[in-house]
Amino acid sequence: MNAPHTTPGTPAAQDATFANHQNASFLQACLRQATDHTPMWLMRQAGRYLPEYLATRIKAGNSFMGLATNVEYATEVTLQPLDRYPLDAAILFSDILTVPDAMGLGLSFGAGEGPRFATPVRDEAAVAALAVPDMDKLRYVFDAVTSIRKALTQPDGKSRVPLIGFSGSPWTLACYMVEGAGSSDYRLIKTMLYSRPDLMHRILAINADSVATYLNAQIDAGAQAVMIFDSWGGVLADGAFQQFSLAYTARVLAQLKKTHTDAAGNTIRIPRIVFTKGGGLWLQEMAALDCEVLGLDWTVNLGKARALVGGAEYASGVNGPGKALQGNIDPNVLFAPPAHIATEVARVLDSFGKPYQGTGTGPTHIFNLGHGISQYTPPEHVAALVEAVHSHSRAMRARGA
Amino acid sequence: MNAPHTTPGTPAAQDATFANHQNASFLQACLRQATDHTPMWLMRQAGRYLPEYLATRIKAGNSFMGLATNVEYATEVTLQPLDRYPLDAAILFSDILTVPDAMGLGLSFGAGEGPRFATPVRDEAAVAALAVPDMDKLRYVFDAVTSIRKALTQPDGKSRVPLIGFSGSPWTLACYMVEGAGSSDYRLIKTMLYSRPDLMHRILAINADSVATYLNAQIDAGAQAVMIFDSWGGVLADGAFQQFSLAYTARVLAQLKKTHTDAAGNTIRIPRIVFTKGGGLWLQEMAALDCEVLGLDWTVNLGKARALVGGAEYASGVNGPGKALQGNIDPNVLFAPPAHIATEVARVLDSFGKPYQGTGTGPTHIFNLGHGISQYTPPEHVAALVEAVHSHSRAMRARGA
Repeated sequence: MNAPHTTPGTPAAQDATFANHQNASFLQACLRQATDHTPMWLMRQAGRYLPEYLATRIKAGNSFMGLATNVEYATEVTLQPLDRYPLDAAILFSDILTVPDAMGLGLSFGAGEGPRFATPVRDEAAVAALAVPDMDKLRYVFDAVTSIRKALTQPDGKSRVPLIGFSGSPWTLACYMVEGAGSSDYRLIKTMLYSRPDLMHRILAINADSVATYLNAQIDAGAQAVMIFDSWGGVLADGAFQQFSLAYTARVLAQLKKTHTDAAGNTIRIPRIVFTKGGGLWLQEMAALDCEVLGLDWTVNLGKARALVGGAEYASGVNGPGKALQGNIDPNVLFAPPAHIATEVARVLDSFGKPYQGTGTGPTHIFNLGHGISQYTPPEHVAALVEAVHSHSRAMRARGA
Repeated sequence: MNAPHTTPGTPAAQDATFANHQNASFLQACLRQATDHTPMWLMRQAGRYLPEYLATRIKAGNSFMGLATNVEYATEVTLQPLDRYPLDAAILFSDILTVPDAMGLGLSFGAGEGPRFATPVRDEAAVAALAVPDMDKLRYVFDAVTSIRKALTQPDGKSRVPLIGFSGSPWTLACYMVEGAGSSDYRLIKTMLYSRPDLMHRILAINADSVATYLNAQIDAGAQAVMIFDSWGGVLADGAFQQFSLAYTARVLAQLKKTHTDAAGNTIRIPRIVFTKGGGLWLQEMAALDCEVLGLDWTVNLGKARALVGGAEYASGVNGPGKALQGNIDPNVLFAPPAHIATEVARVLDSFGKPYQGTGTGPTHIFNLGHGISQYTPPEHVAALVEAVHSHSRAMRARGA
């Protein structure tokens, strides 16, 4: 196979991955190519802080899953933040817990509460009954992907911005599957992990194979990048993280499609992003993952992360070709006045430093929050953030430094 | 001043710090001296997992502060875990929030809830009204320290184990003072931090001076080591941690007594422990703190931490003399059967490696949990943990490795 990802240095114009886009900056940065600004999107950018999101949600019976399972509504809310802000990527509106729901665990969202499973997985019988779900039960997700891609297609046939698909990581799904809901201490799943590691490994293997199948189906439906949210990897002890989270994220990645053949027969590269919240201490180990981008929370210093895993100006080769880095401003910065937001944005961009500017591949940065945006965020502050990222990152490139 | 802490290598027998103890292993390990086993204690070792604690609490009107403010009950519950388990240190029974309570914020503990302040500090006027509290309002704490020390004194005049005093860090106290209670997102305090850093700095300066005065008074009352709990330092962004937590922990340390003159006129060294939960990424910066011990949570690899800040076999001198390390098993390990607990204990002890065995100073380890013990812990599992730590750590020393 003549895989395009083995030819770094292919100018963007010659790479079909970027051809049918009005704004391919996100994909270029994922693949460690130069862009004229630092591309950005926001985790949970389609969400409760937007009044138009709340209005659509009312139409959907004021239900999160009502939104996520309705193709028309899911498309509508995915595009809402793009209509307000010049974001550089869209992300599928869905939840990380659709996969265990399809396994039959009965996902629900109580009013004002987080997710909850009707039948958590807590004993040997429940573990034995688990299996990779029938992907037909997740058709609403794939249909939403196709619908959103269509909605993003402009009159000139190009995509406004790329669409990111996603899933929870095997470990993060398991946290909810065993705990049955969010947890402050992860007592139930860690009791299983330390008492019955055999059961834990079985759950994680099934989750990994399910997530891989699920993400590949999202790619087939039109997702142009995929992200694995290891939201709870950071609650694990050193040693346990590597064994119970990282190894299964790697198992997902080993099964993921790296390319997709589009309708015109072009080979499109599909960048893969892994984000472990609280995983900063394990960054060097994560550099060995077969993915293009690592997401970082706000505790990580981007300059140090770049030195560790971002690669030198050209591929370092030590741990593969080096990773693009995504992150990492504290979402609470958005509660400060716009002038303060701009100062903090500059601090984050400057801590990464000037991204690669050549015609090959080198260190790149995708700006994002270090975690999902708060529902209490003033929407006009998000406008200030986006403006600050775009203008400061253009100015950085213009400067000598 | 002929400060004893400038003479590492003083054999234990010649150092008054260790003279009046039946078991000085904890103090010796704090001061990076060899011990015949790895000393251990457990964060929140006097607590709800013990039926005898619950019985005393009933006597105190089933109230946490009822226990903490009654010298007799505070002494009783401090000693309870020592009567069950051969722990190597006692820690004052109290709460990290006594200082802001003495500032007049009105601390209470609702049934089944965490702490809550009646009048949180959220605006300029409330910040302006803050001041270092009158230490007379905290006399119940100092009286408890003196009472516990007396209760620990054996017929031969020696102390059973050393007594640790403690406080919350300036940042951690500020979290509760501004949020008014625990928080999942720290939105209120971070809004202040990013919008009004001047107010934030004023709160932290007052907290630092209050904590220093408070800990010095605990030392005067008899505390033989002191610990600063920076329980929420890890929620800060890189950069913000250094400015808003670490700098104020350093301000406390700069004011702390390093020695105490006992009734017989001997100079006793007072080791200082700093524990930032979620602070593993900032370990090298914490190595510059003027303290003897760094506490670590379970996400940190002890071997890597030892290489970074634990010092070589003798003082490295790069960041001062190197730190003793305290931690870091996941408290959830205690929900596994005793054989699994022993395996995990061995993993933690082995990850640190063989502690220093010479007659000078070198890398030492104090075993602890990575966070407070869960109220649901089976007490007999704690016995298995203590036994495993003591026996495995003795065996390690006997081996060649």
